[in-house]
Amino acid sequence: MTSLHETPAPACDAAALDALAAFGRFAAARGWVPATAGNFSVRLDAAHAVVTRSGIDKGNVGADDVAVVPLAGPIPAGMSAETPLHLARYRADARVGAVVHVHTLAATVLSRADRAAGAVRFAGFEMQKALAGITTHDAVVELPIFDNDQDTAALAERVEARLATSGVPGYVLAGHGLYAWGATMNDARRHLEGLEFLLACTLEERRIAR
Amino acid sequence: MTSLHETPAPACDAAALDALAAFGRFAAARGWVPATAGNFSVRLDAAHAVVTRSGIDKGNVGADDVAVVPLAGPIPAGMSAETPLHLARYRADARVGAVVHVHTLAATVLSRADRAAGAVRFAGFEMQKALAGITTHDAVVELPIFDNDQDTAALAERVEARLATSGVPGYVLAGHGLYAWGATMNDARRHLEGLEFLLACTLEERRIAR
Amino acid sequence: MTSLHETPAPACDAAALDALAAFGRFAAARGWVPATAGNFSVRLDAAHAVVTRSGIDKGNVGADDVAVVPLAGPIPAGMSAETPLHLARYRADARVGAVVHVHTLAATVLSRADRAAGAVRFAGFEMQKALAGITTHDAVVELPIFDNDQDTAALAERVEARLATSGVPGYVLAGHGLYAWGATMNDARRHLEGLEFLLACTLEERRIAR
Amino acid sequence: MTSLHETPAPACDAAALDALAAFGRFAAARGWVPATAGNFSVRLDAAHAVVTRSGIDKGNVGADDVAVVPLAGPIPAGMSAETPLHLARYRADARVGAVVHVHTLAATVLSRADRAAGAVRFAGFEMQKALAGITTHDAVVELPIFDNDQDTAALAERVEARLATSGVPGYVLAGHGLYAWGATMNDARRHLEGLEFLLACTLEERRIAR
Repeated sequence: MTSLHETPAPACDAAALDALAAFGRFAAARGWVPATAGNFSVRLDAAHAVVTRSGIDKGNVGADDVAVVPLAGPIPAGMSAETPLHLARYRADARVGAVVHVHTLAATVLSRADRAAGAVRFAGFEMQKALAGITTHDAVVELPIFDNDQDTAALAERVEARLATSGVPGYVLAGHGLYAWGATMNDARRHLEGLEFLLACTLEERRIAR
Repeated sequence: MTSLHETPAPACDAAALDALAAFGRFAAARGWVPATAGNFSVRLDAAHAVVTRSGIDKGNVGADDVAVVPLAGPIPAGMSAETPLHLARYRADARVGAVVHVHTLAATVLSRADRAAGAVRFAGFEMQKALAGITTHDAVVELPIFDNDQDTAALAERVEARLATSGVPGYVLAGHGLYAWGATMNDARRHLEGLEFLLACTLEERRIAR
Repeated sequence: MTSLHETPAPACDAAALDALAAFGRFAAARGWVPATAGNFSVRLDAAHAVVTRSGIDKGNVGADDVAVVPLAGPIPAGMSAETPLHLARYRADARVGAVVHVHTLAATVLSRADRAAGAVRFAGFEMQKALAGITTHDAVVELPIFDNDQDTAALAERVEARLATSGVPGYVLAGHGLYAWGATMNDARRHLEGLEFLLACTLEERRIAR
Repeated sequence: MTSLHETPAPACDAAALDALAAFGRFAAARGWVPATAGNFSVRLDAAHAVVTRSGIDKGNVGADDVAVVPLAGPIPAGMSAETPLHLARYRADARVGAVVHVHTLAATVLSRADRAAGAVRFAGFEMQKALAGITTHDAVVELPIFDNDQDTAALAERVEARLATSGVPGYVLAGHGLYAWGATMNDARRHLEGLEFLLACTLEERRIAR
């Protein structure tokens, strides 16, 4: 059996680049990647992913704005500090084909408001069915919250330890933003859109319920 | 007299597809169909409608994304679980030519907040005149709220029983979203836009009135 | 001297149609003309204006969607019920070259909230300088509020009686929407945008100040 | 050594115009330059900048809509009253290559709400890292607030006196709007987007925290 480190690095294929660029345009149009924030990735094979580089305009992703990264590292220069969070997802679950991370207002504010609880809870929303494996609104969904940490390798370990028992395809970093993933980029985007809608509705309910 | 079941199924014509695609682009631009949510339909004849399929990107509806469905069933595979709600509207009222369903924040939040009252009430808004048959702001409009239910056939029966005496061309499902209809797709869209505006204003009034 | 009624009706020129269509696209993109709401006009000469017809998609105004209307009437069939409010502005002030009316959330909600006061008051905003004749933020601007009325001819009389002493190029109808005007369509749009920004900021201050 | 006044005025180059036009389209799409508000500039050399003219549509900036202005003055006719605030930034810091000013709702409202405190304070947001020199969320960022003043030359002096000890690449004028700058237009835009996101999140926290 060949170890991950011995796998020759594949090139970024056109489909992967198209998926990253299309998601970037979508996210930028909604204002979810302000100030070059956010990063997205697509799995290439069992040992590699294509990840957006740091500091680029996420609404206009081209071939020079992404890099092929071995899941086991090392991470090339010029990548986002959050790349370890992406790689950890691919290593932990072979079904994960795409990971997206954006900065939305609702995710940022609710992840701070509910940090002590460790999760944002949703119940009774039809939109919960946008998440893979959920077939009814009549359930409670817990979106995990993690404290933000500039040591993203350590953060990735804490995240993955908890995700092992979470059935939800996403999490929030407190004061930072929202992560979501799926078997394909379409699935990752659907999960992200669904979670953001649930967060936005929940934030609105806090505004009128006090 | 020929029964509904014996009517040969017509093909989806270009006008119907154009109407569904144009409405989809409109709804997607406003963020009303997140995570592939929402579904739309157009009546083809006395016994058939064209309905969007489940799980597709509602902002980019093509010929493969819709299906001709007999109003009396059976419903083909791959259709949205909410297709019975569309079909019931066409069966109940021969004047209905188009039905649209979207997930907006205001509809989702207010349908939960006012569920016990069974309706969201609007009064004194000029926008009430966007609804067919209403000619003054000086009236009370009651938008019915129904409890959400994954058994959409049973839900459709409850909905239609109440709609028989409601003059409003729309309703909300609690925690789920907004339905509207009209003689044409333009009418359905005008009703939807008008109801959404009324919901958004009402939500805003809750924010500042407490 | 020729009376207004004897003036031969001029044709709608290309510049007027372009101005109306461009404003319509702008307003539709911002969601200010939902459900075919809103209407806009441009003065053609001392006795005529071009006004958008009723019930059309205001984001896609073409030559068939406007009509030349004598300022002194009669109003042709198919025009908006609010046409008298436009005509009265042109008759009352020869400097008025364009009138625009839209339905925004902030205008609708604040015009209801402050109806008893008869005006929405702004003070200390730099944006007040967007209004013709205002050169400092250090002033109080009063945007008149009028009760809505389906008898728009009577409403126009009440509006004009008060506007004779108002220096502000706009007003709101309670629960209905915002009117603004100017010497040119650019001026009318600038006034509308400025007033809407002031309304939106004021509404936001109500949200956080309670 | 040649004094600033003796430097021959360079022409506006295509790159500078492109940067101003592109930023204008970006800002207009977000609604940050309503009613022709806002102004942007790019440094040309040690003694000159290109600045947008007053009263133009900031979403459609062409060659006639900008002017080369000596940093030491005099300011040509037709420029925004806020031009001195731009020039003072370039004179005070040779590293500043672009300055942008927009009117956003969050900046306008929070600059009024926190005027007595003299600053809007942010802490614990990952987005703080969008600001040059900040490498962690675990810090406090103080965005200076200045009272608005129609005497912008005097205002520029007060602003620069305080900025000498502020590490933040932006400030707000109370009831007026947001300024940001950077070594390049990309940097200025990133700072502006980051500060606006922080302001919007902070405003949202005020809504739900009372």
